[in-house]
Amino acid sequence: MKEENRKQDKFTIISELARRRGFYWQSYEIYGGVSGFATYGPLGARLKQNIERKLRELFVNKLGVLEIESPVITPEKVFVASGHVEHFREPMVECVKCKKRFRADHLLEEAAGVGEAEAEKMSLAELNETLKKQGIKCPECGGTLGEPKQFLTMFKTTIGPYSEAVGYGRPEAAQGIFVEFRRLYEMAREKIPFGVLQIGHALRNEISPRQGLLRVREFTIADLEFFFDPEEPDCHLLKEVKDEMLRLVLAEHRLKSSEKITEVSVAEALKKGYVKSEWHAVFMAYAKKLLIELGVSAENQRFIEKLPWERAHYSSQSFDQQVLVERWGWVEVSGHAYRGDYDLKQHAEFSGVDMCVFKEYEKPVEREQLVIKPLMANLGPAFKNEAGKIAEMLSKADPKEVEASLKKEGFFKLGKYKILSEHVNILRQKTAERGRRFIPHVVEPSFGSDRLLYVALEYAYRVKEDRALLSFPPDIAPIQLGVYPLVSKDGLPEKALALYRELIDEGFVAEYDEAGSIGRRYARADEVGIPLGVTVDYDTLKDGTVTVRDRDSWRQVRSPIKDLPHLLHLYFRKKIDFDALGTSI
Amino acid sequence: MKEENRKQDKFTIISELARRRGFYWQSYEIYGGVSGFATYGPLGARLKQNIERKLRELFVNKLGVLEIESPVITPEKVFVASGHVEHFREPMVECVKCKKRFRADHLLEEAAGVGEAEAEKMSLAELNETLKKQGIKCPECGGTLGEPKQFLTMFKTTIGPYSEAVGYGRPEAAQGIFVEFRRLYEMAREKIPFGVLQIGHALRNEISPRQGLLRVREFTIADLEFFFDPEEPDCHLLKEVKDEMLRLVLAEHRLKSSEKITEVSVAEALKKGYVKSEWHAVFMAYAKKLLIELGVSAENQRFIEKLPWERAHYSSQSFDQQVLVERWGWVEVSGHAYRGDYDLKQHAEFSGVDMCVFKEYEKPVEREQLVIKPLMANLGPAFKNEAGKIAEMLSKADPKEVEASLKKEGFFKLGKYKILSEHVNILRQKTAERGRRFIPHVVEPSFGSDRLLYVALEYAYRVKEDRALLSFPPDIAPIQLGVYPLVSKDGLPEKALALYRELIDEGFVAEYDEAGSIGRRYARADEVGIPLGVTVDYDTLKDGTVTVRDRDSWRQVRSPIKDLPHLLHLYFRKKIDFDALGTSI
Repeated sequence: MKEENRKQDKFTIISELARRRGFYWQSYEIYGGVSGFATYGPLGARLKQNIERKLRELFVNKLGVLEIESPVITPEKVFVASGHVEHFREPMVECVKCKKRFRADHLLEEAAGVGEAEAEKMSLAELNETLKKQGIKCPECGGTLGEPKQFLTMFKTTIGPYSEAVGYGRPEAAQGIFVEFRRLYEMAREKIPFGVLQIGHALRNEISPRQGLLRVREFTIADLEFFFDPEEPDCHLLKEVKDEMLRLVLAEHRLKSSEKITEVSVAEALKKGYVKSEWHAVFMAYAKKLLIELGVSAENQRFIEKLPWERAHYSSQSFDQQVLVERWGWVEVSGHAYRGDYDLKQHAEFSGVDMCVFKEYEKPVEREQLVIKPLMANLGPAFKNEAGKIAEMLSKADPKEVEASLKKEGFFKLGKYKILSEHVNILRQKTAERGRRFIPHVVEPSFGSDRLLYVALEYAYRVKEDRALLSFPPDIAPIQLGVYPLVSKDGLPEKALALYRELIDEGFVAEYDEAGSIGRRYARADEVGIPLGVTVDYDTLKDGTVTVRDRDSWRQVRSPIKDLPHLLHLYFRKKIDFDALGTSI
Repeated sequence: MKEENRKQDKFTIISELARRRGFYWQSYEIYGGVSGFATYGPLGARLKQNIERKLRELFVNKLGVLEIESPVITPEKVFVASGHVEHFREPMVECVKCKKRFRADHLLEEAAGVGEAEAEKMSLAELNETLKKQGIKCPECGGTLGEPKQFLTMFKTTIGPYSEAVGYGRPEAAQGIFVEFRRLYEMAREKIPFGVLQIGHALRNEISPRQGLLRVREFTIADLEFFFDPEEPDCHLLKEVKDEMLRLVLAEHRLKSSEKITEVSVAEALKKGYVKSEWHAVFMAYAKKLLIELGVSAENQRFIEKLPWERAHYSSQSFDQQVLVERWGWVEVSGHAYRGDYDLKQHAEFSGVDMCVFKEYEKPVEREQLVIKPLMANLGPAFKNEAGKIAEMLSKADPKEVEASLKKEGFFKLGKYKILSEHVNILRQKTAERGRRFIPHVVEPSFGSDRLLYVALEYAYRVKEDRALLSFPPDIAPIQLGVYPLVSKDGLPEKALALYRELIDEGFVAEYDEAGSIGRRYARADEVGIPLGVTVDYDTLKDGTVTVRDRDSWRQVRSPIKDLPHLLHLYFRKKIDFDALGTSI
């Protein structure tokens, strides 16, 4: 996008509106600001809470997922086991002259027009070669760039007073779930499948953050780790979303440099093998529905399959849910990774704690087993005082091998000893197996709150009669109701304030405003997306009714104050629409 | 408390119950655990959210305080300005032999029985002397202790790829508010007073954390910074809480080693000067009411005034709200500090950004001002080409001083120049002052979510007929409803599941349970504090009614399913009591 267009684009408009009206802004502005950090003001904090509440309503309340809260600060061991200390790195180059540091792959993208996918794929040597070949210089001072190095993008600290107790700020909330798996499994009453959600701050020490709220160093992540039995991968929720259409950009097309959309139902995506796990596909469908509820229509969403080198180190299939935004094109709002048993296996290995679950069969399964019984009566005379040792060695040998060898060769070579048929009995024993031990597999949908908030803002933005309004879905609007006296005299403010207090007591998030003309107050409310305005006028004093105004259509209805709380509860719970709030005027 | 008593005390019982049923436990157990970090399981996370929701309902919804969310990671400049880099330190000693490190003051308390207040007051030299005099050795290996040093108890890290960009994990949420004051003041429409709340994770790198959830390295803090005009310190909310009784332990008594309770109403506490600011006293009253709502009765609460050396560096009067718990005695659950203009002044000085607000008078105030007018007609001839310079110097001189000197001495010495009456006119001018510029003062109530959660648990704990139950106030119970089929056959589970789903759709937090006898299920529910149990039995199939069981009294009423959602909404909004849920049986 050209610079002059950027001045007018939605990213600019939203950023300016967000700063001015208190959705969010860059933190620490009085100290010159620090890139990669944002502060949410009163409206933004509430919008963010509402979005997170929707995630909880969907996953915790409706789907029965467990929610936990674990610390941001994490001991090094955890991220050694998880592979982050090794892999959570980005290529960095330093300018030899001014000592500024940059993401090597971003420089290639920006200065040489190399595609993001291509740049991400390059090794340090390839990056170095390409930077040199393209003659790329420091974008700040024009100096020569050094060799790219891998930079660990976790925030490092020390836990307690010992310098060797290294800790990191978590770059994802997932590990807080994996390390507590045993306990969480107990809380799920030792039943598989079950899911665990964590919504909390996470930290990524980006080399050079950009794109405002879309790439911050401190952000809020909502990681859902869903544990299931890979041998029983059926998802009981599939029937609820099987016909939901998904817009996929498949890896097979991306490898041919195409971003062709394959539009299929969830059921078809599974049948054709585009998505490998039912749970994976089901969560993608819920994520799509969630984004629609945040105001992003289906055609502005897609799921892009990650290429092998783009995937995180733990993932065997990944899709990013992307939303189209004006300035940046398709941006990720959630990631859907098939993590398999990678994390639990790693933690089992590094901690020595068993991460298997036991699943009882409906009825025990009978299995036939070969067993070797040494015949001491014959072994004794044949091997004398070595007989005991040989008996023990035999008990450890593979019965099948022994049987086969005796049958074929007439003997079995056990170390330096020659075992004959007369020395052993090989029996067929029946045993009952009660169940199966295995490490569960994991599908992870992972949402970024901050990005959800940004796209909700960009998609809520409208211009109507030259005025900006934020057309949030009513259930995420940071303020639900504006309460206004028509004029600030003749007892109207008192009446309006009393109504305002009643609505607050009823649990609504409301704002009282009497400053300026009623038109100006409506405009101010529209700009921050307050869905309904309730106005007390002279008729209110006579007949106890008020006008209720719709933010989007600017239409008004008239309702009796006494019915208002009940009607408004129904409206915000999506049981009735605007017209049912009163009689139109 | 003796060791054998500790085995049975509430701290032990709650910790065990919390671990077993999933309220909280020490984090990273599979790696041996890390002291000072706790993970909240499904029930704990929800209980914590409910407590934080109550803070929001009180402060944000009811009192109209603004809420923000700012980063945990903070650049060093902020904490240099706030004084934390200098003051946020604790005395540490290292064992010369085993190299273990300890809080010097805690060692004195534990090994030599020195009082907490006394130990906290000591300088490093005094600590050193007392440790030596008392012959205190390393509690781990008996080795000799080194000299105490000050240890900075903030988590330190680096922001971005430059090692000189030092950052800290915030030890309080307050600075995230102060640094954004200018912008927040705009959002409050440039009207004083107003308050800003932030609830979020904070970090204190304790040398040796202890007391479970009461002293953790990562915790959730709810800091409310309330900005007001020190010349108009009246609090309009005073009338609502003026008769609320406060139990104060005053500094004047503490200085005489007494913990005498002074029980006074809010109005009296202000009148007698025990609490210096109305806002301060009002927030203490709300904090008391909040704790009562969390289940801690008034007689188990007190406010202890901090002694000068116990107060944080920014505070001129502080009270800690304390709650009596069985093992640890009185523990702090909230702090109430009068921060004055300390923080805004510091940030103004360090950032160079003006932190003053302007308050317009209702009508402009007329003030008489002395003004010096140099008389060029006489200055010119007297001072020639220096006249211009002298005129400028005169305009900067204090008119009062000039007038007094001319009157007394007959001249005024302006640097090396002698100014006579004929060189100047001194006029009395009337000016209208439109308003006043000042830095607002701040009162800060600050709550620890984790401690609130712990005391809510300890105070909810009851034993009834040898069974444990958690008698949470219904509005903070992590699960609101248990839904049960009487037996798991004859269509009862299907009916109960359908009711469960309906209640979930209505927005209730419910649990469905059909495992084991109904008595066992009730017991399991009581132990995690589910206030109501709804049981579907054979009569349900006939007449569409269910039993509703009260957790605390174990009484039951019978209600028609069709009325249930409505009745339950009223019950949880505290509009009706248990008996109104149905007909008693």
